Amino acid sequence: MGGMTGTRDMPDTARRRRSGGHAGNAARRTGAAIDQMPWAPPLNTDRPTEPLTDEGVAAIHDGAMRVLEEIGIEFLNHEALALFRQAGCTVEGTNVRMGREWVTEMVARAPRTFTLTPRNPERRLTVGDGHLLFGNVSSPPSWWDLEIGRKVPGTREKCADLFRLTQAFNCIHFAGGYPVEPVDLPPATRHLDVLFDKLTLTDKVAHAYSLGPERVEDVMEMVRLAAGLSHDDFAATPRMYTNINSTSPLKHDYPMIDGCLRLIRRGQAVIVTPFTLAGAMAPVTMAGAVTLSIAEALSAIALFQWVVPGCPCVIGTFTSNVDMKSGAPAFGTPEYMRATQMTGQMARFYGLPLRASGSCAANVPDGQAMWETSNALWSAVQAGTSFVYHAAGWLEGGLIASPEKFVMDCEVLQMIQRYFDPALTATGPGDIALDAIREVGSSGHYFGIQHTQDRYETAFYQPIASDWRNFEAWQTAGGMWSAERAHGIYRRIVDSFEPPPMDPGHREALADFVARRKAEGGAPTDF
Amino acid sequence: MGGMTGTRDMPDTARRRRSGGHAGNAARRTGAAIDQMPWAPPLNTDRPTEPLTDEGVAAIHDGAMRVLEEIGIEFLNHEALALFRQAGCTVEGTNVRMGREWVTEMVARAPRTFTLTPRNPERRLTVGDGHLLFGNVSSPPSWWDLEIGRKVPGTREKCADLFRLTQAFNCIHFAGGYPVEPVDLPPATRHLDVLFDKLTLTDKVAHAYSLGPERVEDVMEMVRLAAGLSHDDFAATPRMYTNINSTSPLKHDYPMIDGCLRLIRRGQAVIVTPFTLAGAMAPVTMAGAVTLSIAEALSAIALFQWVVPGCPCVIGTFTSNVDMKSGAPAFGTPEYMRATQMTGQMARFYGLPLRASGSCAANVPDGQAMWETSNALWSAVQAGTSFVYHAAGWLEGGLIASPEKFVMDCEVLQMIQRYFDPALTATGPGDIALDAIREVGSSGHYFGIQHTQDRYETAFYQPIASDWRNFEAWQTAGGMWSAERAHGIYRRIVDSFEPPPMDPGHREALADFVARRKAEGGAPTDF
Repeated sequence: MGGMTGTRDMPDTARRRRSGGHAGNAARRTGAAIDQMPWAPPLNTDRPTEPLTDEGVAAIHDGAMRVLEEIGIEFLNHEALALFRQAGCTVEGTNVRMGREWVTEMVARAPRTFTLTPRNPERRLTVGDGHLLFGNVSSPPSWWDLEIGRKVPGTREKCADLFRLTQAFNCIHFAGGYPVEPVDLPPATRHLDVLFDKLTLTDKVAHAYSLGPERVEDVMEMVRLAAGLSHDDFAATPRMYTNINSTSPLKHDYPMIDGCLRLIRRGQAVIVTPFTLAGAMAPVTMAGAVTLSIAEALSAIALFQWVVPGCPCVIGTFTSNVDMKSGAPAFGTPEYMRATQMTGQMARFYGLPLRASGSCAANVPDGQAMWETSNALWSAVQAGTSFVYHAAGWLEGGLIASPEKFVMDCEVLQMIQRYFDPALTATGPGDIALDAIREVGSSGHYFGIQHTQDRYETAFYQPIASDWRNFEAWQTAGGMWSAERAHGIYRRIVDSFEPPPMDPGHREALADFVARRKAEGGAPTDF
Repeated sequence: MGGMTGTRDMPDTARRRRSGGHAGNAARRTGAAIDQMPWAPPLNTDRPTEPLTDEGVAAIHDGAMRVLEEIGIEFLNHEALALFRQAGCTVEGTNVRMGREWVTEMVARAPRTFTLTPRNPERRLTVGDGHLLFGNVSSPPSWWDLEIGRKVPGTREKCADLFRLTQAFNCIHFAGGYPVEPVDLPPATRHLDVLFDKLTLTDKVAHAYSLGPERVEDVMEMVRLAAGLSHDDFAATPRMYTNINSTSPLKHDYPMIDGCLRLIRRGQAVIVTPFTLAGAMAPVTMAGAVTLSIAEALSAIALFQWVVPGCPCVIGTFTSNVDMKSGAPAFGTPEYMRATQMTGQMARFYGLPLRASGSCAANVPDGQAMWETSNALWSAVQAGTSFVYHAAGWLEGGLIASPEKFVMDCEVLQMIQRYFDPALTATGPGDIALDAIREVGSSGHYFGIQHTQDRYETAFYQPIASDWRNFEAWQTAGGMWSAERAHGIYRRIVDSFEPPPMDPGHREALADFVARRKAEGGAPTDF
């Protein structure tokens, strides 16, 4: 028990001791760069926070239905227009209006829960049913780290470093889009290189951008090859997903809808996430922005359910507000939290799993970054979210990816995982501990008693990036602020990183495919 | 609408425009050092997060009652022992055992809600009934700020600066204990000087430490004089409060109980907050630590209700866990959050208002400080807390007060205030905004339309310390991290601070009292 009663600074001793426990196993798996909790996507057992009354839910539903019935959505995709016509919707030019009965009937076809199985079946995810899944930041064009100290363009190597973090952290459950845009790679073949990196550096569920038929088909083929699956086996169950955004207000563009249609026809999953920034491309009122978002999302999900009944669909929320001072998007605000919770209520009303985000407006991994991201992540939890995009690494409203922020966010994510450990709120006789209270009485302490000895290795959360030493010990150890510590953790992870096991034949097939598609010129770049 | 559509960096213009609104009025009141939301303690309308089942609540209640019935609590206060004897409890030496029927009957006498009225009646607080009240950090011996860059002892001037922040921020509703211990003041008269500063620099509800009869009586007298009240008027309704900690495990010391008895006999309020650190002075299990905390708190509250039936009492939680690496207390952990929520359930079971805290283990106002404090504050919200102690300014497990942290925390507190603005989740026709959605259609934007114009001044949260500009604008403006910005805000507030209005006669009476008591030698220092 020396670690508890002794000096306030003995990480090495404590680490050796704990390496016998569950955290130690996890540390060994990741090359001991970090001591963390095991892979175990949390199950959200909290009752959601529901700011809307039943009447409020009905009002937003009615508003969204009237948008679809009276105003309509633009679909800049000829195939979608033909499908809507076939379904009996009113198509005028690119405008589609649809009745609430039809929308409701279609949306009801979507499963409340489904699985996603990547090349490593141990990383299979359940979407819906209270499972809480976290993914890396996706799509920032720029990178910032503490060593460079500036905002610089993303590169393939930086992108790969973020894949290494994605793989190393057990609290990151899926690989989102490019964690930073590798602008050093030619656009025509960029997707081939990045997906090769993603599928070899991680064994977690992968994402395809819906940026044109060739890219979508290439990524599906690469996910299939990486897992060594037949075409039939690939299509038999969801292996991957795409995430699309509507072009708010009231518009879906060609490639996004095209990509979704391609995925659902091969049994894969889609997420539809309108980006409704209140006061800019959505009403200035949060209920209005949510109403618009719901209408846009349901219009696409109804289409997909018409085409492939029962295909796995997730409804996304990305409703926030603009900064009245600068016009820039704000994130992690009170409005953002409430919009996320309200959309969670609507998602449950429609029986759809929800996607939300970790996000912030901060430009560097400072206090603001963490209070905004904490707000965003906890509101995702409170909303009953299934899929949390951008859960680690996001800065500057999504324009910057930062490895320090990634590490810091993972501390919060792992705390959320621990928060849902039922042991924390168990109330059996051993938990109430009356005998221990009697044994210690009014003058002893609980350090050395058997009740503590039996439980102390797993009793409390063990942090990754937090430093809990007192000021003096912390100062003696270098006096590092959390971003500096996170930088060190990032470097340790990438420097000691070992890619997850992969069948050499599968890897070779993947590399051959990339080489062939590169020789063919890749994908068109006219998007 | 130029502020929304134009350049991304126009704080002056935006500030001028907004100064016509509610925020501007607030800014004028505080000398324009900060632009903030008005004084309006939030009403928590969220359903609490309740990790315990009814059986779990019953198990903790039964555990706590068995502690009181079978094990007993030590009361190192002869008057309390006599009172317990009079009430029919079993007193053996300093050990007091009490039956659950008596405890339940006594605790049921406590009001579910009461008010606290400071010298400025506009600052009257309602405790309970969903009102969410925030107070400054209390009792750290040390100070840290970005300019000094070191941990230094507290002084009267630093303490006064924190009172200035306490007064300046509308989201701080009450003045807790000394926001930093002024160790440059002699212990015998320290309370006289600090209370003089508190009662002249702020007009918010004040606190008395229960550190001996003389100090408690002095503070009550000073609160009375500062408000210009007769003795009867002072006692007619709660004007102030004390907060006591049990000496866990299972012990209440002399001065704490003495102070409470003095306050309740003059109609003032008490908060009983056991400091049950799981694995140290409480069981390693969270339910066990909560059980111990409940038993300790109820034993004192039952006593107070025996003495003064219906006296205003708050039950406090300060249950956290130790760091297994260093033995230091950890704060804002998943265990801390769950303990706070569980105690909230127990407080509602007993019909008592709850006190919780904003807290962290971080040593500097960095990312860790904010993810830990965010966890603590949001769990206080989720627990249905009435009184949030240490809500602003706390570092290093309560050993350091920091003005930067104070400012940063106030951003989170003001966001919580805004989060509970019903406008955010309103769903009337104007909120659903169908007409606006129709007007803008699929190709316009919402910047310029009437629906936005009518609402944009108050539509969104306006931050105090957050910088929402993009990276380039932020960099051009100095590239300051949030702690640096907070330092500047702190300096602006204290440099332009004007004390709240005070009747000159009341102030003179207060000064005379301090002078007289100093001449008498103050209070004994043998505590």
